[in-house]
This record gives sequence, C-alpha cells and structure tokens, in this order.
Amino acid sequence: MKHARIRYQGDVHNVTVNDDHSVTLPNGETLAEQQVEWLPPAHGTVFALAINYADHAAELSFKAPTEPLAFLKSPSTLTGHNAVSVRPDNVDYMHYECELVVIIGKTAKNVKREQAMDYVAGYTVCNDYAVRDFLENYYRPNLRVKNRDTLTPIGPYWVDKEDVPNPHELTLRTWVNGELRQEGNTRDLVFDIPALIEYLSGFMTLSPGDMIATGTPEGLSDVVPGDEVVVEVEGVGRLVNWIVSEAGYEASLG
Amino acid sequence: MKHARIRYQGDVHNVTVNDDHSVTLPNGETLAEQQVEWLPPAHGTVFALAINYADHAAELSFKAPTEPLAFLKSPSTLTGHNAVSVRPDNVDYMHYECELVVIIGKTAKNVKREQAMDYVAGYTVCNDYAVRDFLENYYRPNLRVKNRDTLTPIGPYWVDKEDVPNPHELTLRTWVNGELRQEGNTRDLVFDIPALIEYLSGFMTLSPGDMIATGTPEGLSDVVPGDEVVVEVEGVGRLVNWIVSEAGYEASLG
Repeated sequence: MKHARIRYQGDVHNVTVNDDHSVTLPNGETLAEQQVEWLPPAHGTVFALAINYADHAAELSFKAPTEPLAFLKSPSTLTGHNAVSVRPDNVDYMHYECELVVIIGKTAKNVKREQAMDYVAGYTVCNDYAVRDFLENYYRPNLRVKNRDTLTPIGPYWVDKEDVPNPHELTLRTWVNGELRQEGNTRDLVFDIPALIEYLSGFMTLSPGDMIATGTPEGLSDVVPGDEVVVEVEGVGRLVNWIVSEAGYEASLG
Repeated sequence: MKHARIRYQGDVHNVTVNDDHSVTLPNGETLAEQQVEWLPPAHGTVFALAINYADHAAELSFKAPTEPLAFLKSPSTLTGHNAVSVRPDNVDYMHYECELVVIIGKTAKNVKREQAMDYVAGYTVCNDYAVRDFLENYYRPNLRVKNRDTLTPIGPYWVDKEDVPNPHELTLRTWVNGELRQEGNTRDLVFDIPALIEYLSGFMTLSPGDMIATGTPEGLSDVVPGDEVVVEVEGVGRLVNWIVSEAGYEASLG
C-alpha cells in the first residue's frame, strides 16, 4: 500500500494512493494527482547520508568513509512531489541526487543489525540536491550545501516494507528533461539499511516517521532553471520536480 | 516577561514564569518550579554554532572559522530544565557548553544585519554538551558528538528581547557541583547575533520559534554521572541539569 500526506483546500490529510496516483481521503473522496499539493510523506526528523556509494565518493575525489557520514535536514529544506526547487543565483553547480529513503516504523534505540529491519515501516524517494560550490571537504556537508529552502523534495508517497521484497537490489535513476543522467543500484550502498539503523540508533532514538535518505550513486550533473528533474527508485516511486530561479520562485509565490 | 513550555499532568502548556520561578497556566493556576516538567521553551528548528568564540577555538587547537560553522540539532537531543543528561558508557570526555540562545520571532529570509534584531523575539540558555571522543576535526561536528539523546538541555524559559538591553554584553558561567568551571562573555562572539541571522537567513527560512545556540567560550572540562551542572547567562536564565549513566537513565525511566 502507498501512503501520502497531501494538502487539499487548506487542510493536510493522510491518504492512501491508488495505482493511477489518485488519492483517497479519509472521507472516501478520490482526487487526481494534479488536484492536490503533495507534502513530504512522513513527518519526522530527516537524516541523510553523505558518500554512501563508493562510485560517488570517487566521483567527488573523496575516499569512501569508514563509518556512516550522517547529517540532519531542516524542515525548511523539505518539499514534496510536483514542487519547484530554487537554484540559488550566483552559484556554479547544483546537482540532483536520487536516493532511497527508509521510513522508520517504531521507536528504535540501540538496535542491532539483525533486528534492524523490524523497525522499518517502508520506503520513499528523495532528491537530495546539493549546491556544490560550498562543498568544502568530505566531512558532513555544511548547511549551504544541503539545507537550503526547497532543495530536498521527498515522496510522492511511501510504500509498505512488505511491497519491496529486497531494498538492497533496487535501480535508482534520474532524468533531466527526459534524458537519463544517473543510474545506480542500492546493492552498491557502502552502509546498508541495517547498518544505518544500528549506527544511528546506537546514540539517538529513532522515532516513527523519521526518515533516512541513504545516499546517491555516481552520475551527477548541473541543473538550471527550467529543468524538469525526475528521480525514480524501482518499485518505490517516481518524484517529479522543476528547477526555478530565485526570481521565478518569488513570482510563483504570487 | 518570561515564557516557558511545561508539561503538567500529561498536558503541554505555554506559560508565563514568575520571579520565583513558579509558572502560571492559561487558566490562572500557579504551580511551583518543582511541580512541572520543563520542556524546551520553543518548538522550532534548533541551530547551533561550532567554534564561535576565539578562545574556545584555541582551546581545541582549531583555527577560528572564516564563516559561521552552523549545524542542526535533532528533536531527540533536546531536553529541558531540571532534566537529566546521559553520559554514554565507554567515552573518555564529555563536556558542557554554556550558550546564549536566540529565539526567532518572525519569518526571516534574506535579512540584512542592519534589520536582523527585528526578527529576534528573545533569548534563552542551553547547555550544548559534546562527546569529544568523536570530534574528528573543526568542521561541522558529527551526530555522535552533538546529537545524542538528552544532551542538549535548553531553557528554563525564554525572556523577551526588550528585557535584555545588550545581548552582546552578557556573562556566561558554568558550575559543576557548585564549582565555577567556565566563564565568558558574549562580547567575545566571533559572529554576533545579526551576523548569524544574516548568514542563515541568506539561504534558509528562519521561522518563529526557531532557536540559534550561539556557541560557547573556553573553560571546558569533563563531567561524570552524579554531577550537577548549572549553566547561566546573565539576565537570561539559569539552567540546572544532572549527569546520569546509561544504566541510571534506564532506571529513571522506571
């Protein structure tokens, strides 16, 4: 089953998503994909991983890390499916990052990897854009790289764990204006899902609705205002997003 | 005026705090300081600054930064006044950090330093504990240093901006078991409050209730289970906290 959070006529609803991407409200009303504002599909803390595919580490001329390089995302950077993301003026390089996201299903503290999958509710997709101009080193990225407003679209929905037989064998793909630019597979994760849950829950409590964006493979390139960017994780979801300039964003707010 | 968030008989209340630290509920009922559970005094995103006092940079053998080193705190690390903080087993060094915290009062984006103070609602205090074992370099600290459960007490309350005539001339002090261990003054901030608001709002939207912990001066030392740690910012507040072991914490949860 697919679960989403949407806004419709000013109210936020938790909904189920149908195969044609229409959504069914709790009152039984069905709305088409384009009728609703898609929000991030869960409401917890968002963790992200830097350099969690070895090929991507090489691409950035960094060594692969010896432990997970986890960092936090702020609420202000999150947006949903079919939303716009703002490319800052006066930067040279902003790239997409297609990522599988794990949704935590129950409170996790000091969980060992053997039990870790019991704490997973399901999966979603994110595009963890980075403004590479400000990427100073391989260590945790600073907020100007990874926490700008609107630069973390996530969704459209999350799918139950039971509907994804092997999360470590999923193709990730990114298209820009219809052209395939990035392709990888979760089998190449440096730290797999149980490792990430064991690591984080070893010193922090993970709560239901928390999300872990697991990192991106190689194949990154610059995007510019006007671009349509689609990220897809096989069997999980396909997230559409448009790049706008700062002025274009201001105009879109009306 | 002093404002707090407290839990009493299972419910969370926004309250005003009286001079004797009793609190007055919206229904007019007054409760003593020890009758209530003190929560973090606001409910937004918490930013923190690394190395924002030059003397502290020297103490850690790091150079002072050329731009603010801001990072995010997760909800799970936050706790309130009169709470316990867990010193992890098997670490060698956990230190307190007394800090002035700015409370944002209205939505801030692209704010220049000349207008920045208009966006401040008030101030509170935090103790931004660090587990130094995992501090790998001067860059943004990783989550094992700065985002462990219970290691960011904040409060007890926030005070209106109008009640703090000069936030850049406040003494910060930390006592461990009654012994003065840390003393500094906000006049020594590397990046002052307007600079921090200008920097962060330049690429992220700050929202009402967001908090910026402005960094700590020199004078750090290890704390161990059983210690009472008091951090105070002159004219803003005095936050009390106890260190417990992991086993002690489990026992306190009953």
